[in-house]
Amino acid sequence: MKEIYLDNSATTRVFPEVAELVTHVMCEDYGNPSSMHLKGVEAEKYIKSAKETLAKILKVNEKEIYFTSGGTESDNLALIGSAMANYRAGQHVITTQIEHPAVLQTCDYLEKKGFEVTYLPVDSNGQISLSDLEKAIRPDTILVSIMHTNNEIGALQPIEEAGALIKRLNPNTLFHVDAVQGFGKMRIYPKKWNIDMLAVSSHKIHGPKGVGFLYVGEKVKIHPISHGGGQQKGLRNGTENVPGIAGMALAAQMMYDHLDEDHTRLLALKARLIEGLCQIEDVKINGLTGADSASHIVSVSVRGVRSEVLLHALEDRGIYVSAGSACASNKPQTSATLKAIGVEKELLDSTVRVSMSVYTTCEEIDETVKAFGEIVPMLRRFTRR
Amino acid sequence: MKEIYLDNSATTRVFPEVAELVTHVMCEDYGNPSSMHLKGVEAEKYIKSAKETLAKILKVNEKEIYFTSGGTESDNLALIGSAMANYRAGQHVITTQIEHPAVLQTCDYLEKKGFEVTYLPVDSNGQISLSDLEKAIRPDTILVSIMHTNNEIGALQPIEEAGALIKRLNPNTLFHVDAVQGFGKMRIYPKKWNIDMLAVSSHKIHGPKGVGFLYVGEKVKIHPISHGGGQQKGLRNGTENVPGIAGMALAAQMMYDHLDEDHTRLLALKARLIEGLCQIEDVKINGLTGADSASHIVSVSVRGVRSEVLLHALEDRGIYVSAGSACASNKPQTSATLKAIGVEKELLDSTVRVSMSVYTTCEEIDETVKAFGEIVPMLRRFTRR
Repeated sequence: MKEIYLDNSATTRVFPEVAELVTHVMCEDYGNPSSMHLKGVEAEKYIKSAKETLAKILKVNEKEIYFTSGGTESDNLALIGSAMANYRAGQHVITTQIEHPAVLQTCDYLEKKGFEVTYLPVDSNGQISLSDLEKAIRPDTILVSIMHTNNEIGALQPIEEAGALIKRLNPNTLFHVDAVQGFGKMRIYPKKWNIDMLAVSSHKIHGPKGVGFLYVGEKVKIHPISHGGGQQKGLRNGTENVPGIAGMALAAQMMYDHLDEDHTRLLALKARLIEGLCQIEDVKINGLTGADSASHIVSVSVRGVRSEVLLHALEDRGIYVSAGSACASNKPQTSATLKAIGVEKELLDSTVRVSMSVYTTCEEIDETVKAFGEIVPMLRRFTRR
Repeated sequence: MKEIYLDNSATTRVFPEVAELVTHVMCEDYGNPSSMHLKGVEAEKYIKSAKETLAKILKVNEKEIYFTSGGTESDNLALIGSAMANYRAGQHVITTQIEHPAVLQTCDYLEKKGFEVTYLPVDSNGQISLSDLEKAIRPDTILVSIMHTNNEIGALQPIEEAGALIKRLNPNTLFHVDAVQGFGKMRIYPKKWNIDMLAVSSHKIHGPKGVGFLYVGEKVKIHPISHGGGQQKGLRNGTENVPGIAGMALAAQMMYDHLDEDHTRLLALKARLIEGLCQIEDVKINGLTGADSASHIVSVSVRGVRSEVLLHALEDRGIYVSAGSACASNKPQTSATLKAIGVEKELLDSTVRVSMSVYTTCEEIDETVKAFGEIVPMLRRFTRR
């Protein structure tokens, strides 16, 4: 059976070119960048080149790129590292109600450590209001953390406007952006948008798992959250994951090489998918659906059908989607995002996420629409009223 | 020019079988283990199988294995995670003067957080004395951290005896062992040896970089040091590095498949190397040299020759060794280990580390001895007296 993988917001297939590079670095250029001999120097070159690639893409400086083990570590380093380093300036942090657990759970930890956290609400499209943000910023606000692209419904936040607002009201407030779902899909300019820290994961853009990076503006006061050999200026200790870093940079470059075409193509596929799904009775799309939303994520509520049942029925046809957010471990939990945008209680557990990638084809979308159209009425017949 | 890589304590060449598996998982079985569909289940199987392999090797339970981004994170999680979780029971920690920076720098952090740390001295062979340990253990000692194999001179610690002593004097004291240089080279039995936590890195045993694990006995009270989606029972959050984890487990299995033969063979190579080097005037081996030491590490002090100069002269012949410890970033620093074992001041900066692997051949060792024999007198001629 042909597989139709539509769970790309959970993770992606690694580009073959990336896998080839990773293998080459693992087996040939396997030195430790901290070693002083040629094999160390070779390894160091991959790190330097990866920094150059990523810095160029983001229009930032190479020395502002720090490699981590992934999005979760990047978010933790940004939030805990900057909150602890700026503790004396204030203990107020602002975030949103629909962040990924890597941010929400870390804010929870900060609250336990004595910080006060304001959680901005979102409207029915999953977007914060700038006036809410304006009201929340105080003289003791040391950090604002807002995600670029929501992982469940694809809502985009007004990052550029938020950055300008934050710096106007309190120039000392740091601005962190979780760009795990947005990087490589849309252009992001940290400097121009007043972003101080930006978290990115490799495995969402066809790079290897277990690697990511954090952009940290050079003036940002931040402490490490783990300790060791002094690698990466002591901010992120431990032997660098050279093959992973090289692979991530190549994947990022490959995403950027066709970013605009892919974005346009995926937006068209998204429209086609939504049009098809909306032909089915009592099916509702959550959030915005046009160019004002992420091109690759569609959240679909299907009244009267439990998301888990729908997921497995689609799986039987080789179609892989997710129930709510797959990032939050395999126990299905009520989604904070769906609740925050006011999805009615009956639909919370009847929502699946379809997330596409550069590999997704028009035929796959048509096949998926067809499958929904056949499966949903059948499952509803089995549902007790 | 043929390369002779003798810096295996810094990092190792990945086994080709491991690289093949990593590629397969990256490109084919690339699912997120948190996803509920088949591709998630497939990914979860790799994690489960890796846990089984590692648990079997260590004779522990699968649920006691937690995957991390490497040795540094494993050490940080063990030390900070258990110290914070047991803060109320006491604030005293014991370690040694010759630990890796991942432990020493983390202990430094714990001191800043209000913990008291006792650093056990070592003798001229780099070994702690059990009576020192006995004297150091107090009712408020919550944690003892001792490395299995020293990364610079290959000293082995009396781990089994230390474990028994700790539990006899204070059954509540946790025992952490940094086994980054020892795992896969010698058999280690956490349960039998009263080890509560054991840190392991993949890239020291021909596995991929960017992955490691921490054994945590099921009764150990420990807190996470980063926060997120609840993966790995909430102790280590973030999407698991499935290809890296699968690769590490395969590498560990491959090391264990020939562990005894390799150990015997490397000890013989070590003896041959030492015998050869000791023919050269004013060359001294630091630490023990027989089966009472690590089979793969040789620390060589060469009077009158700066280690960096010697390293580059060997490099010119394709022979790669390290100056002191390469793990401590490329700035050469005075080695805490060499100082602690009482190496005379003049030799501190005249010491290189030769570290072998299963790939090391007798011919390579003979070639290395020959190179030392030719290079050392030549370099000495250039040294001003």
